[in-house]
Amino acid sequence: MLIRHAEPADYARVHAVIDEWWGGRAMSAMLPKLFFVHFRDTSFVAEDEDGALAAFLCGFRSQTFDDEAYIHFVGVDPARREAGLGRSLYERFFAAVGDRSVVRAVTSPLNERSVAFHKALGFDVERVDPDYDGRGEARVLLCRRR
Amino acid sequence: MLIRHAEPADYARVHAVIDEWWGGRAMSAMLPKLFFVHFRDTSFVAEDEDGALAAFLCGFRSQTFDDEAYIHFVGVDPARREAGLGRSLYERFFAAVGDRSVVRAVTSPLNERSVAFHKALGFDVERVDPDYDGRGEARVLLCRRR
Repeated sequence: MLIRHAEPADYARVHAVIDEWWGGRAMSAMLPKLFFVHFRDTSFVAEDEDGALAAFLCGFRSQTFDDEAYIHFVGVDPARREAGLGRSLYERFFAAVGDRSVVRAVTSPLNERSVAFHKALGFDVERVDPDYDGRGEARVLLCRRR
Repeated sequence: MLIRHAEPADYARVHAVIDEWWGGRAMSAMLPKLFFVHFRDTSFVAEDEDGALAAFLCGFRSQTFDDEAYIHFVGVDPARREAGLGRSLYERFFAAVGDRSVVRAVTSPLNERSVAFHKALGFDVERVDPDYDGRGEARVLLCRRR
C-alpha cells in the first residue's frame, strides 16, 4: 500500500466513491475539491499496488489557532477496513502537522466505531454538541494533545 | 452595515439561510462549520444595525501555494443585493490576505452575474473546466493577481 499526498487529479475518483463508502449517505457535497488543491501538504491518498484507491484523508492547519490542526474527512474502502489503513493515514497527518500540538476532529455520536477509533489513537472526547452543524445533528468533539 | 470576522456562533444562522439565498438550491452541505472555526481571519459576516445577517464570505490562505488565497463561499441576502455588499466583503478579504498576490475563486459558467462581478473586481477567467467538481458540473476558474 502506498500513501502519498493528495493531488487535484485524485478528486474525481475520491468524490465518485464517497457516498458508496458511507453506505449510501449523501456525503460527497461535504468534500469540495479545494482540499485536493490547497491542502495537499496535509491530505493523503492510499493506493494499492495496482493504483486502486483504498483510502484518503483531508485535513489542514488551523488558521485561527496557531497550535491546532483539523482532520475534516477520512474514508476507507469498506472492503479494506480492519487493516490499519485509517491509523496509517492519521499517523501521516500527525507527522505532517508535527509543528502543531493539538489535532481536532468531529464525528457522530451514533458512530461508536469512529469514537473508539479516535480514542485508540489518543483522542479525548471534549464534549458532545447537540447541534454542531446547525442541522440538529449532534457531533462528538475530539481532541488529541501531545 | 458592520463587517466583522466570522465567529463559530455565526454558523447556525448562516447555514439556515443558504439554501433560501441560493433560490432553493441545496447548497448548505457545501459549507461545513470549520470555516467559522479555523478560518476566522479570512472569513467575514456583514450585519445591519439591528444585528440581522446581511451577507458573509468564507475564504482562506492556500496551504499548498504560499502566494495564493482562495474564496470558497460568498452569500448576500437577496433583499440587499446591488448595494455593494459583495464588493465590500471581497475588499475586506483582499486586505486580510494582503501578503498573498494571487486570489482564486470558482463559479458556474451559467452564473453570468457572478462572472461579471468577479471581472469588475479585477479577476480574470483562467479557463472553464467542464468537470471541475467531479459531478459533471462546469466551473469558471477565476484569478486575481496584483
